[in-house]
Amino acid sequence: MSLWIDGVVESRMSALDRGLNYGDGLFETMRLLDRAVRYLDRHLARLAQGCERLGISRVDFAALNHEIASIARTLDDGALKLIVTRGSGPRGYRPAGTERPTRVLAWSPPRVADASAGTDGVRVRYCSTPASVNVALAGVKHLNRLDCVLARSEWSDADIAEGLMRDSQGAIVGGTMSNVFAVRGETIVTPRIDRAGVKGIMRGIVIEAAHGAGLVVEEHVLTAAHLAAAHELFLTNALIGIWPVRALENRQLKPGPVTRRLQHMCSA
Amino acid sequence: MSLWIDGVVESRMSALDRGLNYGDGLFETMRLLDRAVRYLDRHLARLAQGCERLGISRVDFAALNHEIASIARTLDDGALKLIVTRGSGPRGYRPAGTERPTRVLAWSPPRVADASAGTDGVRVRYCSTPASVNVALAGVKHLNRLDCVLARSEWSDADIAEGLMRDSQGAIVGGTMSNVFAVRGETIVTPRIDRAGVKGIMRGIVIEAAHGAGLVVEEHVLTAAHLAAAHELFLTNALIGIWPVRALENRQLKPGPVTRRLQHMCSA
Repeated sequence: MSLWIDGVVESRMSALDRGLNYGDGLFETMRLLDRAVRYLDRHLARLAQGCERLGISRVDFAALNHEIASIARTLDDGALKLIVTRGSGPRGYRPAGTERPTRVLAWSPPRVADASAGTDGVRVRYCSTPASVNVALAGVKHLNRLDCVLARSEWSDADIAEGLMRDSQGAIVGGTMSNVFAVRGETIVTPRIDRAGVKGIMRGIVIEAAHGAGLVVEEHVLTAAHLAAAHELFLTNALIGIWPVRALENRQLKPGPVTRRLQHMCSA
Repeated sequence: MSLWIDGVVESRMSALDRGLNYGDGLFETMRLLDRAVRYLDRHLARLAQGCERLGISRVDFAALNHEIASIARTLDDGALKLIVTRGSGPRGYRPAGTERPTRVLAWSPPRVADASAGTDGVRVRYCSTPASVNVALAGVKHLNRLDCVLARSEWSDADIAEGLMRDSQGAIVGGTMSNVFAVRGETIVTPRIDRAGVKGIMRGIVIEAAHGAGLVVEEHVLTAAHLAAAHELFLTNALIGIWPVRALENRQLKPGPVTRRLQHMCSA
């Protein structure tokens, strides 16, 4: 694990940082490949949207882009996680507005277990921990992720790669660390992400690719019944790309033609 | 501001701490008075319940109690904030189970503005930011507090001391940093805190005191209509004790007899 804080090699930060105290910040988990961050522009655009939603200003995105690209040139393939917090401040929820944002970069190696998942597909379960619902936070990749932590704590079977989370009304939100898509014929459906969950970078790329391929993409409420009726299911995130679902609980599925076509379009 | 991390004077901590990365931890904001923490046993009991809810083990509460009491003896009156996180770990939501919890203690001075609020009462507004809803997290004083941060960002008028938050169904959850009570005749009503919000230490003390005084205390869904029909309103937290509400939006109220009686019972 290698760490940079505010652009310099450093592993520790202030315990007064609002990122720690309130989860008052955002993150991006980015794929490092051949000395560069894939989709860096998209990651930084989403980060900027998140800063706008949370009212975090004073982030210099041009400098951040340069910093990440420079550090990426020194690193092997793996995951590069970026955290941007509002910064440190006195006690109390109210931001002073004068905080200087903190940025943390952490590199970690690829996971061996992930290598064959794109080809073979993965096993998925349902989680009982609900996704936290808040329209003011939905879609944003913020640091308040206790719901995902508790959901991911529900199983330890290494053969199960992901768990699906639902909101308080039973609508499927996505995986603990991924977005979910259901394919039925030529139609692809994915949750709207307007009450809970994160709008993933790969989710956006897949939706664009599907549109480009003439497929129908719908964003609406997705229930367990929709998933049970789907011909194909797949998961997305920026590190894994597209993972076909080969089993959801006890139901077996095959990686299907739409999933394979999208994998082909979204690779490289 | 004075800081201790894991029992020693220190202001910085690992950027890999899960408290920063996911808000994977808990906190207590405690009142320091005459070289001791008020209600320390209750704070640590709630912390233990929170650890149980989040599956954070390996916290030595007897040692923590001793550490806090020792540090408190060196400090002037003010606020002592304790953060306990799950500790540091590799990337990924799933706790390894072997993390060593991190504890942070931060002292800050009393706020001058708070001194007269107990006597005069405070002005309160409604916030538009909803409280995050999650039955698995409701009641717990965890580090995922972005909803409170956004709600507290809605106003800067120093004459307004608190904002009330509602959940996605319009039920009142509490203030951004307090619990709320409505008094109607001899009946006291406060939100159940079973879908969102924090079960405050002072909330528990007030409920016990009210029972002891022969008042009826109900915990149920509270709406703006309930507050509009209330004869008295008050706010509680461990630092402020009980604050009468003297204005909710444009409605003026007087600190009433039930509030005064409870203030008297819960002081000292």
